[in-house]
Amino acid sequence: MSLESGPRGGPVLIVGSVALDTVRTPFGEVSEALGGSASYAATAASFFCPVRVVAVVGEDFPEENVARLAGREVDLGGLQRAPGRTFRWQGYYEYDLSQAHTVSTELNVFESFRPRLPEEYRSSPYVFLANIDPGLQLAVLDQLHRPRLVACDTMNFWIERAPEKVLEVLARVDIALMNDAEARQLCGEANLIAAARRILNCGPGVVLIKKGEHGALMMSHESCFAAASYPLEEVRDPTGAGDAFAGGLLGYLARTGEEGDEVLRRAAVCGAVMASYAVEDFSLGRLLELTPEEIAERYHEIVAMTRCGRL
Amino acid sequence: MSLESGPRGGPVLIVGSVALDTVRTPFGEVSEALGGSASYAATAASFFCPVRVVAVVGEDFPEENVARLAGREVDLGGLQRAPGRTFRWQGYYEYDLSQAHTVSTELNVFESFRPRLPEEYRSSPYVFLANIDPGLQLAVLDQLHRPRLVACDTMNFWIERAPEKVLEVLARVDIALMNDAEARQLCGEANLIAAARRILNCGPGVVLIKKGEHGALMMSHESCFAAASYPLEEVRDPTGAGDAFAGGLLGYLARTGEEGDEVLRRAAVCGAVMASYAVEDFSLGRLLELTPEEIAERYHEIVAMTRCGRL
Repeated sequence: MSLESGPRGGPVLIVGSVALDTVRTPFGEVSEALGGSASYAATAASFFCPVRVVAVVGEDFPEENVARLAGREVDLGGLQRAPGRTFRWQGYYEYDLSQAHTVSTELNVFESFRPRLPEEYRSSPYVFLANIDPGLQLAVLDQLHRPRLVACDTMNFWIERAPEKVLEVLARVDIALMNDAEARQLCGEANLIAAARRILNCGPGVVLIKKGEHGALMMSHESCFAAASYPLEEVRDPTGAGDAFAGGLLGYLARTGEEGDEVLRRAAVCGAVMASYAVEDFSLGRLLELTPEEIAERYHEIVAMTRCGRL
Repeated sequence: MSLESGPRGGPVLIVGSVALDTVRTPFGEVSEALGGSASYAATAASFFCPVRVVAVVGEDFPEENVARLAGREVDLGGLQRAPGRTFRWQGYYEYDLSQAHTVSTELNVFESFRPRLPEEYRSSPYVFLANIDPGLQLAVLDQLHRPRLVACDTMNFWIERAPEKVLEVLARVDIALMNDAEARQLCGEANLIAAARRILNCGPGVVLIKKGEHGALMMSHESCFAAASYPLEEVRDPTGAGDAFAGGLLGYLARTGEEGDEVLRRAAVCGAVMASYAVEDFSLGRLLELTPEEIAERYHEIVAMTRCGRL
């Protein structure tokens, strides 16, 4: 499949956050840069298929950021503008980039965000419920009309505060994404394979556990796939890696329209590709300048990294 | 290749420790059970090729443990018996099995161990220098006569106390094995890929970084291979996993006699197979009852876990 023909198939609906991020890492910093789970996921998915976004921003949201997403031909018909300030996150990463340290979170307009799906969005065949309040994720599910495939993400914040709501969401989606620490936390289980099995037993047909530099583990009741991560010698900013992963995964599935283990494996590698590019620069810097050729090249490099013959 | 024809090729010489381990994990405990890097590595390698061991035990070392290793047809001509007590390690693992907590280490006869290679061992074509004092590893290297391939392992203890000696060993071996935390520590570098690159620049043609549940990363100047770990839902005792990995790796290389990236990849998966069996039970419990069919079966399961088609 060549990506050079532009986005096809889908569309994929992405519901999540659009934020202004202030981030510092050992490699630099940015202030009030475009961020949020929906921004990363939508940009990543847009290389594969048409994308629709439902999110909220405040009156202060810079028009140039709208232009950035629109420039990727992301449909922003569901981007609500609410009175007040845009959601802001400030954080930093130490030398070991594996953990984000939050300095401040200003929910602002996000506090009263109620996702309303435009009528034409309700029959979107592919849906990604990015990391937001699981109560809102459920409200989105209630508005959907027979989607082909729904994936969700979550985070430690919701697992601690509303575990039963998280489980309610899991019971209603096809693919559950989360990172390894979150999977262990949700299940109270140190063994990641046992945790993945428990999550599967909550309802989703597929669980996809993101492990940062260690790649991703995708499990269904029948199959287990280990996607390698691209071996980057410099990670400038890990923010948004998981959302870019989800965007690549959903975007590829939506583009092909295929089902089953084989396409899920290829989609997971597309996720790993988009995550690896996302972390090469701050904000959406690298994703926005990416080419279809670069995506294909890295895809094949990652697949080649695990190639192995018979005993 | 079928392993059912028994060990072939090689032989591989293994220099390391033979110990009596007292270990507690959330899944049980053992007292003074057969352990030590050479025991694990030799047992794992013995399924692939003839094995020779150089190590030391005390007067109290139970004859049944000698019989266990000899039962795997491991050549114990280099197993020295010294006056005093055998090396003992006592430790435990918490619920999260990723880290060993040491309760006590009694070096005993190991304190004055000076590896002496029997004359016929000096021309061993394959050599594994398991985790011992790097000064002793250098002393072994000095006794070798034109080996085809030498691999070494080390640990945080030596990286802290004798980093320059560790680097001296690395400069003289073909394959450097260590775990991810040790690679980061040795290089003072949080990025594992950058750390692996630095280790390559110290001399070895291949660096193999063991990452436990996350598999292993093998890098040379030309290639990068990610071996998946077998998805075990229950790990009873992680002790010796790294040594079993090394044994499988070296054993496979010695059996085939081949060189290059392709055989190294297959050998790394053999390492992952042997590590996964090692952790299924305490001490050498599972490795000693393993069959060639089980090794082949898990090998193909691990390879299937990373199979992925074109974009």
